[in-house]
Amino acid sequence: MGSRKHAQISPSPVPVALLIVDVITTFGFPDGDEILRQALLMRDTLVKFKARARQIGIPVLYVNDNFGDWRSEKEILMGRCLEAKGGEFVRPLMPDSDDYFILKPMHSAFYMTPLEVLLRHLKIDALILTGLTSNSCLTVTAHDANMRGLNIYVPRDCSCARNFEEHSQALNQLGKMAGVNTTPSTSLKLPNLVRKAQRS
Amino acid sequence: MGSRKHAQISPSPVPVALLIVDVITTFGFPDGDEILRQALLMRDTLVKFKARARQIGIPVLYVNDNFGDWRSEKEILMGRCLEAKGGEFVRPLMPDSDDYFILKPMHSAFYMTPLEVLLRHLKIDALILTGLTSNSCLTVTAHDANMRGLNIYVPRDCSCARNFEEHSQALNQLGKMAGVNTTPSTSLKLPNLVRKAQRS
Amino acid sequence: MGSRKHAQISPSPVPVALLIVDVITTFGFPDGDEILRQALLMRDTLVKFKARARQIGIPVLYVNDNFGDWRSEKEILMGRCLEAKGGEFVRPLMPDSDDYFILKPMHSAFYMTPLEVLLRHLKIDALILTGLTSNSCLTVTAHDANMRGLNIYVPRDCSCARNFEEHSQALNQLGKMAGVNTTPSTSLKLPNLVRKAQRS
Amino acid sequence: MGSRKHAQISPSPVPVALLIVDVITTFGFPDGDEILRQALLMRDTLVKFKARARQIGIPVLYVNDNFGDWRSEKEILMGRCLEAKGGEFVRPLMPDSDDYFILKPMHSAFYMTPLEVLLRHLKIDALILTGLTSNSCLTVTAHDANMRGLNIYVPRDCSCARNFEEHSQALNQLGKMAGVNTTPSTSLKLPNLVRKAQRS
Repeated sequence: MGSRKHAQISPSPVPVALLIVDVITTFGFPDGDEILRQALLMRDTLVKFKARARQIGIPVLYVNDNFGDWRSEKEILMGRCLEAKGGEFVRPLMPDSDDYFILKPMHSAFYMTPLEVLLRHLKIDALILTGLTSNSCLTVTAHDANMRGLNIYVPRDCSCARNFEEHSQALNQLGKMAGVNTTPSTSLKLPNLVRKAQRS
Repeated sequence: MGSRKHAQISPSPVPVALLIVDVITTFGFPDGDEILRQALLMRDTLVKFKARARQIGIPVLYVNDNFGDWRSEKEILMGRCLEAKGGEFVRPLMPDSDDYFILKPMHSAFYMTPLEVLLRHLKIDALILTGLTSNSCLTVTAHDANMRGLNIYVPRDCSCARNFEEHSQALNQLGKMAGVNTTPSTSLKLPNLVRKAQRS
Repeated sequence: MGSRKHAQISPSPVPVALLIVDVITTFGFPDGDEILRQALLMRDTLVKFKARARQIGIPVLYVNDNFGDWRSEKEILMGRCLEAKGGEFVRPLMPDSDDYFILKPMHSAFYMTPLEVLLRHLKIDALILTGLTSNSCLTVTAHDANMRGLNIYVPRDCSCARNFEEHSQALNQLGKMAGVNTTPSTSLKLPNLVRKAQRS
Repeated sequence: MGSRKHAQISPSPVPVALLIVDVITTFGFPDGDEILRQALLMRDTLVKFKARARQIGIPVLYVNDNFGDWRSEKEILMGRCLEAKGGEFVRPLMPDSDDYFILKPMHSAFYMTPLEVLLRHLKIDALILTGLTSNSCLTVTAHDANMRGLNIYVPRDCSCARNFEEHSQALNQLGKMAGVNTTPSTSLKLPNLVRKAQRS
């Protein structure tokens, strides 16, 4: 097409985005049961945190594994996940109609996805990473965000791994090696976080 | 998630893919009317060519502008385009249920999309580029395919620009600068093209 | 390594960069003689333009084909080019000691190079593209810059192709399809261009 | 330039490459002393392993932080590192004249570098990662290699971190999450590893 102007969107009201990674899932993979058990423990915390973020205008971006679905059938993917064994986890975390939704083919939310273009249009400087799992997709995504100069938060009560030890090790490593802030969501003051991003 | 094995797909039966670029559109942009007029002239040729490709097992990949739709609502995008002024162009070119469908945020089919991962899984060596428009998205995509070492075909009767002169200049330039084969689809012997790709 | 802070550089005094593409060359490729003839015609204009840019603080970035030299031997590459048939073209265009120098493996200055990181550190909003050749590497680079949201200038007297017609067609196409400003360098008022970039 | 054919190189005799990451360094960063101490403990093992790899035709690729040097002055970078406090580590690990040398601007050896193009030309299927440090650049590089479908080895006696515990945690995590083989170099049978890559 000629001009890409029609594809442009306005900057976000605040330069912070909430990423929710891989929560639309059937848990139908090795270790799926272990991860589901941990995921259910943090589900309500993540639901509440998402609500707080939306309330102050932080855009919510779902970035989700396409599970080999190369036909971009978002609704079919969601339907399948609601009916699978993790339905009680998935249901309260379904995207709202104005949340963004991006499919990713591999682990990182940045690798071969339009995430970077969307963040550029929204003029985002800080990312809050949540979802599944801390020692795999969130770790790779955090490193990729770090190389792109973004400030990164991974609240330790809004993601999980197969067990608490792996989760804890992953967060400690991200804190030390990628400058990630791992304060739990219940202690994060979102308006302060936003002001800090606005000044940077 | 842990393993990405579940996201893998089998190699394509043939190492050639047909890309159909930006045909799902409302034509609601500057020069949209001019492009629609040219697009209608080549529509039936493209429809027939797609049918021939499918018949010998060439996978069909739609790579389409997301038109600022960052929520991956493929069905909504399609519905809107069917009802817009270019509906008669869009209808016979709608994706079949087993065609792949990838949203792109910018001009190139490669830029910030999973196309390269999909081509790698399918083990594709040659790309046939068709759709809209030859001197914009197809040109950028052809250069990107060239840098990735793929053999490229842009049959000159399966794409268009705002007018014949611009279309013709674009194809000549691609032939000279990116090693693109611009033989019209009606002269392309697909089984030969496939055999050539299999040997390479 | 631990922190990447040591790799950071300060923003450029002005948000505009001058790219000089592929001028360090032996011209030892098909059509090399034709391109050298055209290159010599614009050499002095480019040399003067570079001097004007440096004078007002515009950083100069050489982005150059590595010619299959995967050992980053910049000095060896330069020496070889000075002694080859295009030496009289290359000599006055050798990088100054504070110019940046990036090797590229393929056509685009962006593809698999650190250019984007460098532009981000320098806080560049507008690119001026010069060098060899307008209908190949400059075309691909301009499209890539366009997709990254940069404003682009390709002064028509500071690059060339194999002949005037191909050069002229390439610039017209860039003007129409990628929003490129092709005003000749002799008419470009650099301080105005800088002010415009500072406001954007 | 016109054709990129001149930039092509022949496939490697074996589809395996040895990456040596960030060993050309001044250790002049936070924790540099700690890392140097660990690096000296594994230096001789890495030197011997590199010799074994070269002997059976495995290409050696140095991928090294540019330390903010955007002028590609490889020799200057090396000279500075030889004279700094880690000189005794750097000297026996200097690149041989036929080793490849790639500068990287950030943590990952893949991010904004030509590494992927080079691996494609060499037709590499498996990567052996060594150097500094296991829980930072090697971790990010391993994840990036994993997303590109490469088989990955990180022999645990050919890299290090600030201390043994961090090193050990990083390798365990890579083994579990990115399918990395962490067998020590002294137990790795390189001819077997090569045969396995040739069959894949």
